[in-house]
Amino acid sequence: MVQNPARRTALTDAAIDVLADQGARGLTFRAVDVRAGVPTGTASNYFASRDDLLDQTARHIHHRLTPDPVVLGGLLRAPRDRALVTALLHDLVRRIDADRSGYLAMLELRLEATRRPELRAQLTAAVREQLEANVAYHLGEGLPGDRETVVVLYLAMTGLLVEHLTLPDVLGADTLPALVDTLAARIVP
Amino acid sequence: MVQNPARRTALTDAAIDVLADQGARGLTFRAVDVRAGVPTGTASNYFASRDDLLDQTARHIHHRLTPDPVVLGGLLRAPRDRALVTALLHDLVRRIDADRSGYLAMLELRLEATRRPELRAQLTAAVREQLEANVAYHLGEGLPGDRETVVVLYLAMTGLLVEHLTLPDVLGADTLPALVDTLAARIVP
Repeated sequence: MVQNPARRTALTDAAIDVLADQGARGLTFRAVDVRAGVPTGTASNYFASRDDLLDQTARHIHHRLTPDPVVLGGLLRAPRDRALVTALLHDLVRRIDADRSGYLAMLELRLEATRRPELRAQLTAAVREQLEANVAYHLGEGLPGDRETVVVLYLAMTGLLVEHLTLPDVLGADTLPALVDTLAARIVP
Repeated sequence: MVQNPARRTALTDAAIDVLADQGARGLTFRAVDVRAGVPTGTASNYFASRDDLLDQTARHIHHRLTPDPVVLGGLLRAPRDRALVTALLHDLVRRIDADRSGYLAMLELRLEATRRPELRAQLTAAVREQLEANVAYHLGEGLPGDRETVVVLYLAMTGLLVEHLTLPDVLGADTLPALVDTLAARIVP
């Protein structure tokens, strides 16, 4: 079976769009083929099973939502204070706003994980690793606050992003940056 | 068309279970009939359309997740301090743990709302009304903090509940009460 890395990426990008548009139940090999504009049967050459497709799609979402090292490097020239934490949170919101489908697909996968123990185990490991990396980064860079600060920020940002992406008018779309400032001001010492 | 309130409730309860188990795409009149154990065609006598079914199901979830006035009355005999806010948050977590399907169905509806403007408008109005009622209640009862305190608590609790219900082992299932204490300690003055 010949496989092509660019085509694999195109297929997992298509899977993210299918998840965001149609939900987990809509995610079939055929829907991925149609969305990627490739011949019927292509996805089944790249993924051993639907579980494998879900697994690789989840990994690809984490990859797509990773911070840009250049942007991050620029931000990190500033002093280690609350303003820097706030700037990092604004960067996170910008990345997710630029990739709504990626974050919505991740929410679909979280709900699908309530029905599929293998997917739950894989997402749990990935999300926990990310959270622990955030804690290690925050403490390692000398940003203000402790482990609990990072966990509370993570939970509040999760709530904000779920609200913003699913029912943006509950909080008022144009107050999103102000809400990020509020979260930082209330949670970061 | 003869309608029976108990049967309507049984149908919307069944719709919540279908949403939680199969996602929004699984929610059809036929799936609701099967789940409720009623003759095929019953749901179509109670709901004018699938949008009407989604709308009434959303209202029913809000009703199911409403606090018990007796429990609330008992809690509110305590002094208006951070410990009381913490106790109210623990009561919220208990209610949602006792009705996982209700909260998971609400998350499914939030994702479905990204595809259906009418549902989005209805859920936005319901969730905003609930948030404003929480703010009015908090301030009216003289609980510590201001409007922003309530909004930050709401966002952090939303994040905690999404994490707990979809990937409980990220945070460790047995630390949930400790995390509620942490959120209150860090956010409520």
